Amino acid sequence: MESPHFLDLFKEFKQKVDEYIFEKLPLNHDIPEIKLLYEMMRDYPSRAGKGLRPGLLMTFNRAFGGSDERSLNTASALEIFQNWIVIHDDIEDGSDLRRGEPALHVKFGMPLALNAGDALAGKMWELIYENKNILGDETAMKVFNEFLVMYSRTTEGQHIELGWEHNRRWELTADDYFSMCKRKTAWYTCISPSWVGGMIAGAPDSLKESFVRFGKDLGVAFQIQDDILNLTGDREKYGKEIGGDILEGKRTLILIDLMSKCNPDEKQFVINSLDRAREKKDPGIIEDVLRLMKKYNSIEYAISISHEKAKSARQTYMEHINDHIAREEYQKVIIDLIDFMVEREL
Amino acid sequence: MESPHFLDLFKEFKQKVDEYIFEKLPLNHDIPEIKLLYEMMRDYPSRAGKGLRPGLLMTFNRAFGGSDERSLNTASALEIFQNWIVIHDDIEDGSDLRRGEPALHVKFGMPLALNAGDALAGKMWELIYENKNILGDETAMKVFNEFLVMYSRTTEGQHIELGWEHNRRWELTADDYFSMCKRKTAWYTCISPSWVGGMIAGAPDSLKESFVRFGKDLGVAFQIQDDILNLTGDREKYGKEIGGDILEGKRTLILIDLMSKCNPDEKQFVINSLDRAREKKDPGIIEDVLRLMKKYNSIEYAISISHEKAKSARQTYMEHINDHIAREEYQKVIIDLIDFMVEREL
Repeated sequence: MESPHFLDLFKEFKQKVDEYIFEKLPLNHDIPEIKLLYEMMRDYPSRAGKGLRPGLLMTFNRAFGGSDERSLNTASALEIFQNWIVIHDDIEDGSDLRRGEPALHVKFGMPLALNAGDALAGKMWELIYENKNILGDETAMKVFNEFLVMYSRTTEGQHIELGWEHNRRWELTADDYFSMCKRKTAWYTCISPSWVGGMIAGAPDSLKESFVRFGKDLGVAFQIQDDILNLTGDREKYGKEIGGDILEGKRTLILIDLMSKCNPDEKQFVINSLDRAREKKDPGIIEDVLRLMKKYNSIEYAISISHEKAKSARQTYMEHINDHIAREEYQKVIIDLIDFMVEREL
Repeated sequence: MESPHFLDLFKEFKQKVDEYIFEKLPLNHDIPEIKLLYEMMRDYPSRAGKGLRPGLLMTFNRAFGGSDERSLNTASALEIFQNWIVIHDDIEDGSDLRRGEPALHVKFGMPLALNAGDALAGKMWELIYENKNILGDETAMKVFNEFLVMYSRTTEGQHIELGWEHNRRWELTADDYFSMCKRKTAWYTCISPSWVGGMIAGAPDSLKESFVRFGKDLGVAFQIQDDILNLTGDREKYGKEIGGDILEGKRTLILIDLMSKCNPDEKQFVINSLDRAREKKDPGIIEDVLRLMKKYNSIEYAISISHEKAKSARQTYMEHINDHIAREEYQKVIIDLIDFMVEREL
């Protein structure tokens, strides 16, 4: 059977997930303030996203012989997870833009946005609860448990990154970055989506360890590429401020590499710039720091690591997962997907 | 059998819940930032709280013949709910104090505190998940469902209150207040605690409607008393800034009553004062607004409504719930408890 192209597949999945989510999210209420809450809960989900995480989940579900009917509810819960977590993330980082539009707290103020994020998180757990009618009690509880692990890892990873900025920590290594990134990004972007997708379709628990290894490497590769796009991407495609990470003082692999290579004067200059930039948001800083990143080939370094991680993910997949795939036409889809994670421009 | 005094009982329950929570919350981690997260998650729970909600849950559980072993996990999840929700609440309201100490975002900055609130919410769901080993699948899922309803009502209620302030709405009626308050406070303070406590012990679903009515009236009475204490309470006992609600521009029943009674000039003065106070936090405003509240007997009015609601809760309890209580010595406990909700000074 011919392999579908993964971009077409993801478009199909995204459409299904969007339809499902907008059916599940409440719409109208007599009390105008609650109606506004419902509008805010629908705001981020209605902005054009890539649907990467539910796409990954539904791809692995199909690959292991599962049906969309069984995976759609969980894939939608995952998409809702992504949406409420970035509402809170945008508040924490003081980000101005999300998917090309003003962040929710910019549109409605921080208090309402924070609470709308909480409300959306509640909707996620409602879908997880509903799994009992879709997957049966046992599998539903396994998915619930996976979501709890994913949730915990993500908040821990977020705390590491925010803590670095809060405590003005600069002496960081690539391993510190990988450890943060595995928690903050890889669990909810790759590990849980791929494993839960397979597990719902009946993938054996003995495969879980390989899925974790696969997803960890892929997720780190994905995040590094995200950090690169934040510096070099096309504003239209990327949907956020270019160089925004520098203004936020984010400890990306690129910045960590620069700090390990530049001379003491340059290092002090970067620290002063970023500490000041965070408070005053001086966009002039972006050019200065970017110039140093180029001088020391830190972006090239990050690209090479991103490719290395993707290669490692591919190897884990080929050696431990590929042979278990029930529907062979999905093997190529998954391999293309791995390449896309580090080649993408959006 | 002699009735225990409810304050002794609540002390006993609170101690059990605290022990349980501190065993369940993570403590140590090699990564210093994650260790800090764990400390932050333990911060509010370690401050002296009243333990009202878990106390109510465990009281109704015992009253219906249940054992503490069965109710403790859910009571602890409820106590965790209260703690993470007030972390976010304090951020949203810009509150400086919680239980006599600086609010979490004052101690650690907003981004880390917001994320710690999310992480603590995750712990709550972990306890809800664990119920399957304590209550069996069916009852565990019923508790899960109750928590979802409680969660949704609370965020909706919070949104109404924040929305009133955000949109500078002043034309509000007592009914608007009751409708907000039922959602924001009554569900998680009274309705869910009492019903879930009884339900875990086997109270029949046919009683639920009465529990909702009982808890709604009791919760509204509780919140009105809380608003009164915010104006007239003892700073030491109360643990928050006295008059803080005025500075935050909170639409309490007292303020709503004042606005409906005072003359146009005074009304404009109050609006100007509160709108300005919110931005500049001018404590001088508190005295001015308080004087008007006294002039129009708005505090007395709120006290009378609080007593009326408590009386109505007591009536619902006596007519529809009291006869179903399995352990008669808890009937008096519950009645004393209703009185305490509106007589308390902390």
